[in-house]
Amino acid sequence: MEWYIGMDLGGTKCAAGIVDAEGRLLARDSIRTGAHRPAREILDDMADQAIRLAATLGADRARLRGIGIGSPGTPDNHQGVVLYSSNLPFRADTAIREALSERTGLPVHLENDAACAALAEARVGAARGVANAVTLTLGTGVGCGMVLGDRIYHGFNNAAGEFGHTVLVPGGEPCPCGRRGCFEQYASATALIRETRRAMARRPASLLHRFARDEGKVSARTAFQAMRAGDDAASEVVSDYIRMLSEGVTNLVNILMPAVLLVGGGVSNEGDSLLAPVRDYVEEHAYYGENVPHTKIALAALGNEAGIIGAALMAAESDAG
Amino acid sequence: MEWYIGMDLGGTKCAAGIVDAEGRLLARDSIRTGAHRPAREILDDMADQAIRLAATLGADRARLRGIGIGSPGTPDNHQGVVLYSSNLPFRADTAIREALSERTGLPVHLENDAACAALAEARVGAARGVANAVTLTLGTGVGCGMVLGDRIYHGFNNAAGEFGHTVLVPGGEPCPCGRRGCFEQYASATALIRETRRAMARRPASLLHRFARDEGKVSARTAFQAMRAGDDAASEVVSDYIRMLSEGVTNLVNILMPAVLLVGGGVSNEGDSLLAPVRDYVEEHAYYGENVPHTKIALAALGNEAGIIGAALMAAESDAG
Repeated sequence: MEWYIGMDLGGTKCAAGIVDAEGRLLARDSIRTGAHRPAREILDDMADQAIRLAATLGADRARLRGIGIGSPGTPDNHQGVVLYSSNLPFRADTAIREALSERTGLPVHLENDAACAALAEARVGAARGVANAVTLTLGTGVGCGMVLGDRIYHGFNNAAGEFGHTVLVPGGEPCPCGRRGCFEQYASATALIRETRRAMARRPASLLHRFARDEGKVSARTAFQAMRAGDDAASEVVSDYIRMLSEGVTNLVNILMPAVLLVGGGVSNEGDSLLAPVRDYVEEHAYYGENVPHTKIALAALGNEAGIIGAALMAAESDAG
Repeated sequence: MEWYIGMDLGGTKCAAGIVDAEGRLLARDSIRTGAHRPAREILDDMADQAIRLAATLGADRARLRGIGIGSPGTPDNHQGVVLYSSNLPFRADTAIREALSERTGLPVHLENDAACAALAEARVGAARGVANAVTLTLGTGVGCGMVLGDRIYHGFNNAAGEFGHTVLVPGGEPCPCGRRGCFEQYASATALIRETRRAMARRPASLLHRFARDEGKVSARTAFQAMRAGDDAASEVVSDYIRMLSEGVTNLVNILMPAVLLVGGGVSNEGDSLLAPVRDYVEEHAYYGENVPHTKIALAALGNEAGIIGAALMAAESDAG
């Protein structure tokens, strides 16, 4: 079997691993990105990381066929660069592919990180075998990766999938993207934490305070925990969050009608407390005519490994043609 | 050259034509659908229409290779039926393909009407030669056809493209789909007429009344005409309409990043009065990073013929494999 290196590059760390052509993760490595440093240093560290991973294979390293990099922002695989990223110091003329390929002797492929995660889920995760699958990631922001017609969809400019930046509430919460009322401002973990804090300020007697104190901070779990303990203020926060998430998911279903739509990221750790009401809402409100099959709404299966696995599989598929 | 029959089926009429493999419309025919009648009668009339068109070719009718039907609702080409349509009496077991194919002796292909229009624009219209193109149609409702990766995208259940039924204003205007605040309730010609009427009720002195009287009705043009004559109330109606349309278009751009996004349908007859401000808004607000190419926003070029041409080209491409 052939092996690939998948690299899930982020502003904080670069998680990488060796993945076989069937999507099994065989070895892992993680380094700090150090995004404040010059691009050259980051690329050197990534090359070292790839070489270190390759070395763990001993003589088998000859079976390594390529490297896939999942990057935030807008990677351009054709040019071998990241055209734009808000949290990496790469510029449109930083020759990422060239740098890594030279040091490792392997072909290098670049793709958006959310798209890689969606590919992993569509190949070996919760949307296994499905030609049209979308994965939403609810974390600091909202990621959206799309596999359409059995391939990663990234738009003509590699910048597709910014579903987090679709306005759901004109004139609503301000968003760093410059618009107001973006989906991300209601459906991200960051948004949930913001609303939890607001509820705490309004409701000093709420159990939210206790759970936040116990955890040492307000997190995306705080409202869910207090809700399960019967707290009204927490129930309101969760219910408002789920309502907006559901509106967004229903919108995405109506546009793309994927066979499977997956929800991942930190907030998805709440499991059925989160998913069941979203699924019910979509079932009731999506634009399905009679006789028309419904999109399956489920939890993403691969967690933090989706990015590595997807980057490797993307390289494998590019390799295959 | 090979020829195809394209049929643009609607609740009111079925417009059909002979189209060559390069998308040229050579002959046209239009009949009333009579959607209140049994499916069998409608299919008989459509078969007669196809046979009548074929007859105009004389001996050349041997060069006809197939029939493409663009239907509202959710056609399923695999089964040769329309799974669901709110304005046609077809049921999931109405064998449309079989009926037409038997009578005409030609292979029959079914596709959604908005998808056909988008295909026509992507092949021979304003998005000619583009692999990722979206066409929005602003009429009674809002249609959305998508050509992604150089092929019609219709989702796993053939029901994709309901961008009109994405909520833009939670709790907003009620929509027949059951949700509130759908894009269609702000961006369709119907919505524009509703807001024009509301402004007329509020502003008895507005020029809107004069233009409506001259035309004999309130139409999607009324507000644009009165605005160009300097009327304040009309300017507000148009400006609110364009703002919501622009928010929706920007959302769609951020999700799909098509090379070209076209605006067609009745309201698009306003040309640059409509398009220029939408384009400006998208340019300013879409989620383009530095160095990333921008989606081109333009008017659809094929007008009412897009449906016929696209249905025929769809048949031609299905024919080719």
